[in-house]
Amino acid sequence: MPNMYDSAYVLEKAIRESEEFKSLQEAYESVMNDPNSKAMFEEFRDVQLDLQEKQMQGMEITEAELDSARNIVNNVQQHQGIANLMEKEQRLNIIIGDISRIITKPLEELYGGFEEEEE
Amino acid sequence: MPNMYDSAYVLEKAIRESEEFKSLQEAYESVMNDPNSKAMFEEFRDVQLDLQEKQMQGMEITEAELDSARNIVNNVQQHQGIANLMEKEQRLNIIIGDISRIITKPLEELYGGFEEEEE
Ligand SMILES: [Ca+2]
Ligand SMILES: [Ca+2]
Repeated sequence: MPNMYDSAYVLEKAIRESEEFKSLQEAYESVMNDPNSKAMFEEFRDVQLDLQEKQMQGMEITEAELDSARNIVNNVQQHQGIANLMEKEQRLNIIIGDISRIITKPLEELYGGFEEEEE
Repeated sequence: MPNMYDSAYVLEKAIRESEEFKSLQEAYESVMNDPNSKAMFEEFRDVQLDLQEKQMQGMEITEAELDSARNIVNNVQQHQGIANLMEKEQRLNIIIGDISRIITKPLEELYGGFEEEEE
């Protein structure tokens, strides 16, 4: 039985060498190496993070902020390079989510087993 | 090269069969199988989650709530079974944190590489 750290490093290598990670890397580099795409992508990221932060803190999001966000999302979706990057991100994020569920299963079963009896 | 899912399942098995997970499991079962310990532990968890929730939502925590929390923490620390459980949880949480950092490293390097140039 391999130990936890050895297995984690094997998994890290599998991620790094996966088709999904490599194509995300390519998509990201192609956006970041073009100044216009890079600026548009970073504006999009900033607006996204701002809205997330406000939502998490229960702050109100104004109509103007929503308009500006919609505007940027529209621009970004029409930009082939960025749309491609976002698709590649989504693909890898789904896999990372699956992986996270797989490796937290032992803990979930442990804590969940007793919870179920109770409710 | 093993694929990502295969590697994740190997890691899951390594966690499940680790000394650290098995001793957490034992500590947890021994607390949960004693009604008094179980009640004390669940009260502690509820208070902890309540405080975390309030903190995250920026709500004020009253002096009375803090007193009650301190009281429960004191009781819990003097309870050998629960103190043991919390120690075992902490040990495994550190490992899970390490694992999480290991497997998110490819993504961090990808996104971080361009960030550094910028700031
Ligand atoms: Ca419960
Ligand atoms: Ca930035």
